[in-house]
Amino acid sequence: MSAWCTRPAASRASSVASDLLPVEEARARILAALAPTAAETVALPEAAGRVLARPVAARLTQPPADVSAMDGYAVRAADAVEGATLSMIGSAPAGRPFAGEVGPGQAVRIFTGGFVPAGAEAILLQEDATAEGTAVRVNETVKAGRWIRRRGLDFTEGHEVLAAGRKLTARDIGLAAASNNPWLAVHRKPRIGILATGDEIALPGDPIPAGGIVSSNAHALAALVKGAGGDPVVLPIAPDDTHAIAEVAGTAHAFDLLVTTGGASVGEHDLIQKALGGEGFELGFWKIAMRPGKPLIWGRLGRTPVLGLPGNPVSALVCGVVFLIPAIGRLSGLPGDPPPTRRLITAVPIAENDRRADHLRSAISYDSEGRMRVTPAEMQDSSMLATLARADALVLRAPFARALPAGAEVEAIVLADLGV
Amino acid sequence: MSAWCTRPAASRASSVASDLLPVEEARARILAALAPTAAETVALPEAAGRVLARPVAARLTQPPADVSAMDGYAVRAADAVEGATLSMIGSAPAGRPFAGEVGPGQAVRIFTGGFVPAGAEAILLQEDATAEGTAVRVNETVKAGRWIRRRGLDFTEGHEVLAAGRKLTARDIGLAAASNNPWLAVHRKPRIGILATGDEIALPGDPIPAGGIVSSNAHALAALVKGAGGDPVVLPIAPDDTHAIAEVAGTAHAFDLLVTTGGASVGEHDLIQKALGGEGFELGFWKIAMRPGKPLIWGRLGRTPVLGLPGNPVSALVCGVVFLIPAIGRLSGLPGDPPPTRRLITAVPIAENDRRADHLRSAISYDSEGRMRVTPAEMQDSSMLATLARADALVLRAPFARALPAGAEVEAIVLADLGV
Repeated sequence: MSAWCTRPAASRASSVASDLLPVEEARARILAALAPTAAETVALPEAAGRVLARPVAARLTQPPADVSAMDGYAVRAADAVEGATLSMIGSAPAGRPFAGEVGPGQAVRIFTGGFVPAGAEAILLQEDATAEGTAVRVNETVKAGRWIRRRGLDFTEGHEVLAAGRKLTARDIGLAAASNNPWLAVHRKPRIGILATGDEIALPGDPIPAGGIVSSNAHALAALVKGAGGDPVVLPIAPDDTHAIAEVAGTAHAFDLLVTTGGASVGEHDLIQKALGGEGFELGFWKIAMRPGKPLIWGRLGRTPVLGLPGNPVSALVCGVVFLIPAIGRLSGLPGDPPPTRRLITAVPIAENDRRADHLRSAISYDSEGRMRVTPAEMQDSSMLATLARADALVLRAPFARALPAGAEVEAIVLADLGV
Repeated sequence: MSAWCTRPAASRASSVASDLLPVEEARARILAALAPTAAETVALPEAAGRVLARPVAARLTQPPADVSAMDGYAVRAADAVEGATLSMIGSAPAGRPFAGEVGPGQAVRIFTGGFVPAGAEAILLQEDATAEGTAVRVNETVKAGRWIRRRGLDFTEGHEVLAAGRKLTARDIGLAAASNNPWLAVHRKPRIGILATGDEIALPGDPIPAGGIVSSNAHALAALVKGAGGDPVVLPIAPDDTHAIAEVAGTAHAFDLLVTTGGASVGEHDLIQKALGGEGFELGFWKIAMRPGKPLIWGRLGRTPVLGLPGNPVSALVCGVVFLIPAIGRLSGLPGDPPPTRRLITAVPIAENDRRADHLRSAISYDSEGRMRVTPAEMQDSSMLATLARADALVLRAPFARALPAGAEVEAIVLADLGV
């Protein structure tokens, strides 16, 4: 077993519950073992939601020249004083620059985005002028430079407009387009193999063995992986059989991360250990100070990291939020930050916590002033998938957190913030 | 022009600025004219992020029988008193029910998820027992019913687990799977045609005409549409030419909504009007009391609604957030709520507002206590796409909103909340 999957000598939190690994430490160790995927070139429209592998520099200057910010007249500032009448010598709509120069006493009709013609250094607003034929009467004295957008106000050729490591938004796609970048270098979507194990599970619609249940983890995790920017590959269910599990070992190299569900409880983990031991599997098995989802497998099969989630669907999904989404972030080229949290007010009292960090499935409601309130579900039984599906937030309860009255502030993961 | 694209007789806000339509009213009228797409059947893994067109009922009961919540021994409650010794007659792991019955003085080894065998009505926890061969010594008296998850605790066959109209999360996919639903009826993704118009625009990488700019709207809006759950179709750029624009009319029937950019300023709108007039276009033209993005076209080309956004990229994207995302929501089967907002604290003073609702491009930072702060960018020039791309939030300023000191509360759209 390599150093990165053994227990650390000591840590602040683990001193509290010495046989359990704190959530933050487990996450930090997972992230430390992952590296971003390599870059690929994609066409601009495919790049939304992807993480830039190289910075994007502007390939032109925007605006390319001084342009008008308003509809009106391009004038010499000294000429356009209240009461003066100017002679209109042409026009400069956006996209069709006026070729000549504005001389003394002259004006050029200009529209928003139109290039300010040579000679002009002020814009007389349309509403501050009266035009009759080519005569333009100035009703309000202009100010030099006013209503002119300077060349390069938005960006300048050669300068970076988007930094490497940025997850590209629709706005970024617009900026990359406007700065004339049809291709972008982004990190390849991490390919995440998902393997559900267990004798008793069947795919939805398939015959269910006596005493069995329908497999929900693989497809729920696939949706979570997709939402987090990964490329999920759902593998056929493997029975609790060393041969079947070992077969998977042969496919692991195809993935940037192999996620298993089931086989992570104390007895089961021996099976995984035994099945994969011959395949060069370096196994770490952690009991995590968290609820739901205490046991976690973390290891490496050849070059492929392996994250073993609990078989319980609620635990698997909560561990997905806590560990897998940050892991996909790191593989995608992001830092792999912990799930974002918000500080919300609890609508009900919350009991004190034991030594495991808890993730209370909670509903969000709004008070009379429109502020968010959270209400943890009364039953937090980890078998209740319907309760998890109905939840809007996971209220975080640190190990040994004290009881809280209604109205107290809590830290919560709002699941919609993660798109899960 | 049909009634739904004419001005309303009166409204609370329009009385303030009578020639400008308030944002809320424009949005309400857009939404009122849209209906959800029809249903389609998709395989479970394709349904994440889609909106359910029909409710999902459980096709089985979960758990299918009373099951153990812990590892231990299934016992008769009356027998398992402290100091007693029971005889182990078999085992009931998850997925492999014990066929017999627990008689007086007997126990069955049971694991989490294992069916509680006939005769037993309590679970003796593993840690409260000492086993030697088939003898199990009771170290702590059990409580009847404790550590048993009742049949149907999670869901019951025939009962609704997911309501129509719900946007499906990864958790919902898990719940649909666990309740044995391999197929789901969801609203078809709305197909959104996107047409950029203008003589002066070129696609990224193409030769740029003199005085021209690179088109950024179509692909930025396509990314926004995709992120909001729509299926974008980017049409070739149409020059400012009645014939070219009219050609598009012939393709509009293919879309659930046609979005145009450009051609929405006062002079341009006449061109669109003229180009499409002969194609059965019912045009509405609204000046909206908002900044950036004041003019908006709203109309209908045959059966296809048309949303005409400003050509200015910042205005187009802000209008995309304010009008297009809710419109896609409505088409997708959601209510089409306004963009969600948060109440945040401004880090700097904010000036009073004029009669247009403003959307200040702002950065989010965190104070020493980890609370979000917003700082509006100093220059709010609507030509600055880089400023929009760098923004984390749009601070909403109502018409005539008063000046605010640093530390005041503001309402803001956090762009990451929308995935844009």
